[in-house]
This record gives sequence, C-alpha cells and structure tokens, in this order.
Amino acid sequence: MDRKTVAIVGGSGYAGGEFLRLALGHPGLEVTQVTSRRFAGEFVHLVHPNLRGRTSLKFIPPEKLEPADILVLALPHGAFLEEYERYLGLGKVVLDLSADFRLKDPALYEKYYGRPHPFPEELPRWVYAVPELYRERIRTADRLAGAGCNATATLLALYPLFRAGLLQPRPVFVTLLISTSAAGREAGPASHHPERAGSYRVYKATGHRHTAEVVENLPGRPEVHLTAIATDRVRGILMTAQAFLLDGWSERDVWQAYREAYGQEPFVRIVKQKKGLFRYPDPKVVEGTNYIDIGFELEADTGRLVVISALDNLVKGTAGHALQALNIRMGWPETLGLDFPGFHP
Amino acid sequence: MDRKTVAIVGGSGYAGGEFLRLALGHPGLEVTQVTSRRFAGEFVHLVHPNLRGRTSLKFIPPEKLEPADILVLALPHGAFLEEYERYLGLGKVVLDLSADFRLKDPALYEKYYGRPHPFPEELPRWVYAVPELYRERIRTADRLAGAGCNATATLLALYPLFRAGLLQPRPVFVTLLISTSAAGREAGPASHHPERAGSYRVYKATGHRHTAEVVENLPGRPEVHLTAIATDRVRGILMTAQAFLLDGWSERDVWQAYREAYGQEPFVRIVKQKKGLFRYPDPKVVEGTNYIDIGFELEADTGRLVVISALDNLVKGTAGHALQALNIRMGWPETLGLDFPGFHP
Amino acid sequence: MDRKTVAIVGGSGYAGGEFLRLALGHPGLEVTQVTSRRFAGEFVHLVHPNLRGRTSLKFIPPEKLEPADILVLALPHGAFLEEYERYLGLGKVVLDLSADFRLKDPALYEKYYGRPHPFPEELPRWVYAVPELYRERIRTADRLAGAGCNATATLLALYPLFRAGLLQPRPVFVTLLISTSAAGREAGPASHHPERAGSYRVYKATGHRHTAEVVENLPGRPEVHLTAIATDRVRGILMTAQAFLLDGWSERDVWQAYREAYGQEPFVRIVKQKKGLFRYPDPKVVEGTNYIDIGFELEADTGRLVVISALDNLVKGTAGHALQALNIRMGWPETLGLDFPGFHP
Amino acid sequence: MDRKTVAIVGGSGYAGGEFLRLALGHPGLEVTQVTSRRFAGEFVHLVHPNLRGRTSLKFIPPEKLEPADILVLALPHGAFLEEYERYLGLGKVVLDLSADFRLKDPALYEKYYGRPHPFPEELPRWVYAVPELYRERIRTADRLAGAGCNATATLLALYPLFRAGLLQPRPVFVTLLISTSAAGREAGPASHHPERAGSYRVYKATGHRHTAEVVENLPGRPEVHLTAIATDRVRGILMTAQAFLLDGWSERDVWQAYREAYGQEPFVRIVKQKKGLFRYPDPKVVEGTNYIDIGFELEADTGRLVVISALDNLVKGTAGHALQALNIRMGWPETLGLDFPGFHP
Repeated sequence: MDRKTVAIVGGSGYAGGEFLRLALGHPGLEVTQVTSRRFAGEFVHLVHPNLRGRTSLKFIPPEKLEPADILVLALPHGAFLEEYERYLGLGKVVLDLSADFRLKDPALYEKYYGRPHPFPEELPRWVYAVPELYRERIRTADRLAGAGCNATATLLALYPLFRAGLLQPRPVFVTLLISTSAAGREAGPASHHPERAGSYRVYKATGHRHTAEVVENLPGRPEVHLTAIATDRVRGILMTAQAFLLDGWSERDVWQAYREAYGQEPFVRIVKQKKGLFRYPDPKVVEGTNYIDIGFELEADTGRLVVISALDNLVKGTAGHALQALNIRMGWPETLGLDFPGFHP
Repeated sequence: MDRKTVAIVGGSGYAGGEFLRLALGHPGLEVTQVTSRRFAGEFVHLVHPNLRGRTSLKFIPPEKLEPADILVLALPHGAFLEEYERYLGLGKVVLDLSADFRLKDPALYEKYYGRPHPFPEELPRWVYAVPELYRERIRTADRLAGAGCNATATLLALYPLFRAGLLQPRPVFVTLLISTSAAGREAGPASHHPERAGSYRVYKATGHRHTAEVVENLPGRPEVHLTAIATDRVRGILMTAQAFLLDGWSERDVWQAYREAYGQEPFVRIVKQKKGLFRYPDPKVVEGTNYIDIGFELEADTGRLVVISALDNLVKGTAGHALQALNIRMGWPETLGLDFPGFHP
Repeated sequence: MDRKTVAIVGGSGYAGGEFLRLALGHPGLEVTQVTSRRFAGEFVHLVHPNLRGRTSLKFIPPEKLEPADILVLALPHGAFLEEYERYLGLGKVVLDLSADFRLKDPALYEKYYGRPHPFPEELPRWVYAVPELYRERIRTADRLAGAGCNATATLLALYPLFRAGLLQPRPVFVTLLISTSAAGREAGPASHHPERAGSYRVYKATGHRHTAEVVENLPGRPEVHLTAIATDRVRGILMTAQAFLLDGWSERDVWQAYREAYGQEPFVRIVKQKKGLFRYPDPKVVEGTNYIDIGFELEADTGRLVVISALDNLVKGTAGHALQALNIRMGWPETLGLDFPGFHP
Repeated sequence: MDRKTVAIVGGSGYAGGEFLRLALGHPGLEVTQVTSRRFAGEFVHLVHPNLRGRTSLKFIPPEKLEPADILVLALPHGAFLEEYERYLGLGKVVLDLSADFRLKDPALYEKYYGRPHPFPEELPRWVYAVPELYRERIRTADRLAGAGCNATATLLALYPLFRAGLLQPRPVFVTLLISTSAAGREAGPASHHPERAGSYRVYKATGHRHTAEVVENLPGRPEVHLTAIATDRVRGILMTAQAFLLDGWSERDVWQAYREAYGQEPFVRIVKQKKGLFRYPDPKVVEGTNYIDIGFELEADTGRLVVISALDNLVKGTAGHALQALNIRMGWPETLGLDFPGFHP
C-alpha cells in the first residue's frame, strides 16, 4: 500500500493521541510529525504510555511543522482559526477535529460559540466528516471537519427517524452520559481524582454546543434539547432520547428506518435483544471500538419512543470517525485500521 | 428516652440491612429480632460486615417472630401480601418498605404490578411515608408504606413545581441514573462484577413501576415519563427532569416554589451554586445521608426547565425516609439517628 | 456537656476537612474557626459540600486565628515548623496532624524528611497520638502528634506480634494499597481523573517516610520494609505484611497476642472468618469508620505469617484517631463522635 | 496466508472468549467451532457482546466437536483430564489453557491441586507455553500448556534475576493485585456487584496454586511466597516482588540482566522512568494488550530490590501468550494478531 504522510497538530491531547494511536496501526499512513508546545522534545510515549515501544516519534513545536499529505488538527476550539491560512497550507487534505468548521450556518456558530465566525465564507468549503451522513461528499473533500462526540451519538441515533418522518413534531429530549476524558488532558481542581471519582456532575443542563451540530444536520431542523451529565467513566457516551412516534407507525417501522439507513454501515449496529446481559447499547461494550450501537424501546400505549445509543467518545466520537472519513477520502477500505472489536468483560 | 422495640422482617437484604444499621444507632429503638430465612442462626454481621462489633443479634426464621412495638417489613414485593394478617398483628406500628401498599388507586397498582391488588379495601388505610408530603398524616398513622427510591427522587423534585402551578401541561421526561444496590442482594449473572462494572445498562426505558407513585402523588396526575439507567455506582440516584415553565414565570418563581415547599425541611437542600465543584446535586455528596439535594437550570430562551435531584437510594430513598417517618410518628425529633453528613471526598 | 472550643488550621484540605466533619458532630466540641488562605471568606461547604446545611462557618485567613481550647493543625508537612511558637500559643491543647512531631529520634527525622529537625529538643514533649499504644500518655498530653495513616495501619497490625515476641528476627515486608485522597486536595496532572482512574501506581517502592514511625514504635526497632501502591480507591488502606513465626508458636498464640493487645479496644476488630464474603479486613467495610480491622493467615508448613489490616486513611488513619486521642485527653468517652458503623453495601 | 482451522472448547468463559476474540482477528486462523454446554445453539455474541457483527458462529455442545488443526481447551481445571484421550485426538496441535498440564513435577501438582495427577507420564510431553522461556521447545510442540496469569506476571519478572544469579538466597515475597475476571464467568454471591465493587479481598494470603509454576520454572527452585489480593479492577495484574540483591551487584547489573533476557522480546517492555505519570508498570497501560511491563527499584542502603510487573490477565496472562506460542509453533510472525497497543487514557 502506498503510504501517505500525516502530521498531527496538538498530539499531546486525548483526541490527538487517539488519532496518533490509530494512525500508527494503519497500513496506509506514515506519521511524520506530532506537535506539542509543552512537550516538544519528549518522546510521545512520555505522554501516551500505551505507545511505548510502538514509535520513536518525539513531539515537535508547532513552528517546525512541515507539509504532509494529510494534516490532522487536534487543537482546542478556536486555535485553528488563529492560524488558519498557515495550517491550511501544510496539508493536501486537512482534517480538523475541533468545532471550528463543523457548522454551515454562521448564526448557529455565533449562538453557541459566543462570537461571530471569523471566516464565515469558508464554512461551506468544509465537509462534516460523518460517513453515515455524508459519505459521497467526503470522497472528494480536502477539508474535513470531525463531528462532536455527543453530536455523533445523538445525530446517528435520531437521523433515520427524522429522515423517515416517523416522529411527532414535538421537542426531542436527549440525555447524554459522558466521560471524564471528554474534558481533555488539562488537569485542574474539577478533574482531581478524589473529587471526580464517584461524582455524577450535571455538566450542561442546557445550552450544550453540540446542539448546533445536531439540529443543523437533522432534516427540518427539529427542536432537540440536550442535557449532558458527566459520570466518572473515563471513556464512553450513553445517549437516550425521548420522542413520540406519529400515529400509525409501529416498532416495525422503526426497525425498517434503521435498517434502511444503516443496513450497509460497517460501524453501526442495531442492538435490541430479548435476552442476554447487554440487550441495549452500552458504552462498556463499544469501549475502544469505532462502533456506534443503537437501540430503541417503544411504549405501546403512549407512542413514546426511547432511542438509545452508545459509542466511545474518543474513537467513533472523535478520532475513529475521522479516520473512517479519511479512509473514504483516500479510497481505502473504510474499516482499515479500525477493526478493534472491544473487550469482554 | 423510652425505647420502643422494633423487629425487622427480611433483614438480610439491602433495605432491611440499612434499616437495621440506622435502628442500631437510634436512641429510641431497640432491635429485638431480625428475620432471614436463609441466614437463620447466623450473626447479622456475617451478611452485613459493617455491623461487626455493633450488635450480637442473629437472624431468626420468620416463624419465630414475636410482637414488637414496631414491625418493619423489608420483603420482596408481594411477600407481605401473602401473610398480610399475620404480620399486621405483630406490630402496633407497621412500616412496609415494599411496594405493596404505596398506592391508593387499585387500577394503578394493577397496571404497574400486573395483577389486581388482593386487598384493595386496605389501601386507604396506609399512609405513604414521605414526610415532606404527608407529615401530618404520618403523625397518627399505624400503617406506613415507604416510598420507592426513584419515586422519592422524582416526586420531591417535581412536587413544588406542580403545587405552584409553574409548569406547562406537557409531558415531563425523567431520566434516573440508578445503582446496582437497587437490584437487591440476590446475586446472578446480571450482577456478576466483571459484566456489571463499567456497564451503563438501560434498565427500564419505559414502564417503570415507580411511575405510578409519582403520578398519583403529584397534583393533577400529570403525564410523567420515567427512564431508568443502571450505572455501576453501588448507591445513589441522580434524577434529571425535563419540563417547560409557563410563560410569565421566571427562575425567581422556581426558587420561591422550592423555598415555600422545603424552607423548613431538615433533609431537603436546594443546590444551585455559581462556583465550586459541586454546583448541582450529586449522588457522591449525599451518599450515606438522608438528604435529598434538589437543583434546577432554566434555559431562558425556551423556557425549558431542567430539574435535578440526588439522594442515596438506600437511605433517603428507602430506610432513611422510613425512619424519618417513624420519628414523626413516635413524636421524636425528626432527625434522630439520621444526622450523618456524608463524606468529602 | 461542657463544650471546648476548637480551631482548625488548614481546614480546606482532606485531613482538616475530615476533622471538621467529625468535630461538627461531636457534642463536646465547638468549632470556632477554620483557616484557609486560599478560600478565606468562603463558606466551608464550598470546599466540603457534605457540610452544606451543617454549619455556617466560613474560612478565615490564618492571620485571624484566635486562641482556642484546642488547636488542630492540618497543614502540609513542615508548615507548622515555620510558625511553631505562634501556633503553640494559640491552643491549650495542640493536636498536629502533620509529620512534624511524630518522631522522637531526630536522626530518623533527618533520614526520612531530608533535613535536620529544627526543634529537636521539642520532640520529646510531643505524644504520638495512637491510643492503642500510648493511651496513658495521651491522658495528660498537651501536645499530640497524629500518626501517619500508613504507619497506623502497619503499626497496629504488627505491634502485638512484636510485643509478644512471636516473630523471627527477619525483615518484615509490608505492602500498602493506598488511595488517591492520601495525596491531598491539591490537583495536578498526576491526579487528573482520566489518568488516575484505573491506574495502580507504585508510589513508593522503597523509602516511604512512614517507615520511620513504624520502626520507632515497634519493640526492638525491627527491620520493616514498606512498599506503597496507590490504587484508585478514594479512601482506604489495605496493608499486608509478610513475616515468619518463631518455631513453637502457633495460630493460637497469634490469636492470643491480638486478644491481649486489643481485647478491650473499642476500634480494633480481629477479622478472620471461615465463611461469609468478608473473611479478612477489607477497606470497603471500614470506609468512613474509625475501625481498624486486623486479620492474619498462617502457612503451616513454612511458618509464614501474613498479617492483614484495613482502615480508612482519613478517619482511623488521620482525623479519627486524632479525635479519639482528644476524647481520651479530655476525659470524654473514647468513642464519642466516632460511632459511624460504615456501610453495606 | 494458509489458514489453519481452530476449535475452542469452553468458549463461553473469559479465557475461551478472549482466545476467540483474538483468533477471529488473526489472519492465519479460521475458527470452525466453539463449544459451550450451557449456551449451545446461541450466537457467541449473546455471551460475548463485543463479537456482535464480527462472527455468526454459534456455540455447539462439546459432543459435536470435530477435528481441527488446532484445538484450544479453555475448560475449568480438571475437566480436560476427564476426557483426555478424546480431546487429544481432535487437534493436531492441542493448546490447553487450564492448569492440567502446566507442571512437570507430579509431586508439585499433587501438593497444589490436592490429588495425584492422573497421567503423570504425560506431563513431560507438554511444553509450558511461555515464549520468553521456552521459545525453542514451542516451535515443535504439539501439546502446549498455557501458563497461569499470576505465574506469568511473577515468572517473567523474576526469571532474569535468578538466571543472572543476582539475588541473595532468601525468600522472595510476591504480592499480586488481581482482578475480578480472574475468578471466571460464573456468577455467585462473591462476585455480586454491590458486594464486590470497592472491595479489596485478600483472596489467597498463602498457598496460591501458581506458586508451583513459578518455583518449577525458576533456576534453582527458589523459595517464593505469593499473596494474591483481588481488587475490583475487571482485568489486570500488578505484581510486586521483594528480594535482596547480592553484595557487589548494582542497579546497572539489574538493567543488564533484563536487557539480556528480554532485549529482543516483542512483548516485554522494561519500564523505569524518571519522569511522566506512568514511571513503573501499571495494569491500566497494558489493558487489552499482550505486553508485560517490568520495572524495578533498588534501595541502595539495604540492597532491597522491588520488582514490579503488570499485564492483562486475559491477554498476556492467558489467551495472548497462548496465541503468541501458537504463532511460534506455526511459523507465523510472533506478533500476528497481537498488536493492539492499549489505550490512553
């Protein structure tokens, strides 16, 4: 396989580190550079101990970045915007894992990120890198914007239902159980282990930024309300959504909507079992994998539909779907480097 | 203090064990007997290792039960009904921790418990032992029915809002993060540690039995939908509810509704801070205590109100509020034996 | 009961916060002041959320400290030494929870703390506040030095064996499983939840400072080697020690040594069961309590004796035994304010 | 690659399930059959939810087993012995993950397993499948006995030191922190989540069976004492060993002993860092991988050497080293199918 070079900007964080891990195991990629201002000069395994013995790469300062076939940006939100032209020039394909270019609507960006987007004219040039929704666009895109982890969990679970027109036009309530890795690698009092362990912290009761991505990518821009609760898992998201089925539709139609949408998808599994210990999606099962598991339960007498999804926020929620999109873009098998099945137990 | 005798039926389970623990530390109670069919003859500390050195009580078989001032029943749902008359005759005050006599409406019982109540005429004779709602009735009740843990978490959080008429007449969606102790002391494949640890199991997406208690005790029998997710905490419940405020009401009115309802309550705290690590209710903070912490967040532009509560399912959710009710019934200080403040960290 | 005033220096840390919690529930103590430089002016419950609704105390800066009957110092090691005279003058009884005055031998201090003790002549004036070893001295002491948590776990487990002369004169190897709260309230990269959760970190393979306390307080200053491993429990210590019984002694003699030493002790339990789930000491069982549970297993054919102990590092390991010593000093019942039995499950 | 057929006996357990997971991802293996008496007829993913969408295999009853190139036995200890001839006839290469054929010395077997070995004459025909120790023998072996997980952790950490003759002839004390998956898939009161979570259970203070494997495979059959403590991790082992270096040897010699022994080993990493958060082996880092990380710390003034190792009990401890041995036996690259690097965080 003809290897493409890839450089990772912001490789000491969890998103960048996860992309690095996946890229090192990918037969089509050759990681040439990984930047970190703070850890410049150190072996990457000082920060990511799982990579000990897997690579002799050292972090370089961002100033030393050289052009590569693919540039992956794993910077805090907004940092890319400050050096937009420079980074854009350093990769034939640029894949941004931050929120900077996920949205198409500048008004939504301003509402959720608190300031006008500095390059609104650039927004249409980026493709939202969710393979299940935008596979065709991804094939030819040179600017790929990775989706938010909570947005991925919510969007992929709800999309087939909206596309098939099964839901009543009422607000959908989404509760997201998220993980401590979602807050990033930066330590502070809020992540101090004795305080954080065992704590279930209502992190965003209202106003979650990923709402913008969800709403913008669902047909008809429905009213969707997100509440995020940070538990003390290290990885994983469990999403539950509350909606109502339109009269006349049944569980069978819901099944069919998911099958039509995802029947051919390599990383979406519909999980709705009558027996076994893991009858519905569970973050434990998908930990470390690129799967999103989706299930649902219909309350027959009220039409209430509870939709459930689970994924690993750092894999399918971030670095995994980004690599999946890259596989599509490069014409490689879509599952390449993403076939880890997860553990039991 | 003049001690009252108390006998506990079903003392090897978690609810009975917790009541036993609290009763042993209560200056007004003398535990005379604790039954367990399986562990008859064994010291109670064989099952409840925290009680080693605290009591020399042994479990007795239920047949050897003798009359006591207070009989506490901590049996699986339905077991009390099978020997109703017998148990009723063994205590001047009978306190049942099961679901057998929580409801007033036989139709609700049948809907949620799948069979007609065998003694529907007895239902009105029982008082639902939630002090914050029924303190006056509890003072003179000889038959007290402890509330469900999830019902307590939901009911106490929503009651003031319904009482004050602040909410739009739309369905309220409740998501409950529950614990593994809620499933009881009986081991099985579903509770096997390697399978259960790290698992977030959607336990009841729809049809949760505690819905009946919630609906019956809220003014106007509103439409409330419960979804319960069992995380791998051992104790604790975090409840979030999604509702909409009626036009014209503000955050201030919500505050006032809670203050009016709970301003004098010894075990309800309103938690809504602008700083600190624990700004909203958190099961970590209330673990082991008889507190229910309640908070809320209002989304100004939509009127969406997210209500949050946290409690320990075995204390405030079960044995603690039962003992609180007993304190009221006996004319003792309401906080007697319930003053444990919880840990940090 | 005639209340004594108590002021706590360094009350925002975990040791100080735990003493504060215990003191607030103690009928003989009135907490008058709690210092914290960083949180001066804030309610103590901002830092210790368990104390919400239990006290309206606010932190004061250390400069505003006024005299009290009892002064409790919960400062980082060495901080007391910098203002020794001043603090000494602020309490009739001074109780120091740091390592500054635990040792009698200045050489041991220098070896383990890396510098000469600045007030070696003061060391004999302090009483090592371990009730089981020094109860009589504590009764009249005005200067009490709380023991280290790991030292307490090790010392109390080994003391009866050395006193009874049961062990061969060979090195004893001690492995301590410790908790994340042991590292204190200060956040940093090493305590960042995603890094720390699930991690078993060999924290001190050799050279643990508490070795000094152990060796100094065991008859004959035996050779004891400590290895401390920090797991991701928040609280608790599990100690195992490896020793060899002298020829001629049996399990029965070990039992007797413990019974003689601790038969009357209110907070020491010998745990060595043939059935049940908790046959040996377990930090889960003693969490939040002032108990130290001690057990042992003898390998008949080799004479190897494995000694096991468990305690809560913040209670029996720090604030609890300090309060127990204070109870002794004040002539109060020794268990006053320390009767929490712990949870199950 | 020419695929070999493999059948797995006892595939519903954790060891068998882990081998199945690895085998499904191995390009040289084709899993033809998986047996489970209890789950015969069910899809394997009912029991191992991580395998959903990865295979359509169903469990078969052991009676339906057919010959395969490789037969992997993952049965409870002793079960293989009951049908020895039959199973032996079903695979050209037989790989047994139980303890039935790990030992060479029948006396050691009888001492630790409590009965004489029924086929002592067969013991020499089996090769102990630890690649680092017996690679050459494995190349031609048709009967491979997988090592115990705790034995692997201990043996590989100590072997180089004994081989190089660096240790004093004194007993070595080994403390093993083990996991709940080590007790297998069978549920029961001892593994009930509310009881097990947070519990640190001294599981084998003395008499651990893996002692036999350790002693038999170390030069000179030294005196090694094992104590196993089951924490509530699901996977992983952290081993610490306490020994004394002979006079004249230094840290440098220890380094060299490890380098000589493992310098070319693909799955052994020496971890001894001066900076970073993971300075010594940590089960968190190796979770899911086939690595064993080994480190050490020397106490200069006493010569005490603390040796530390970490591995995943189900991978390097069981199924992973078994597959590694199989790779060697089949002439495949030794790391084939075993290249998962583990997670961070």
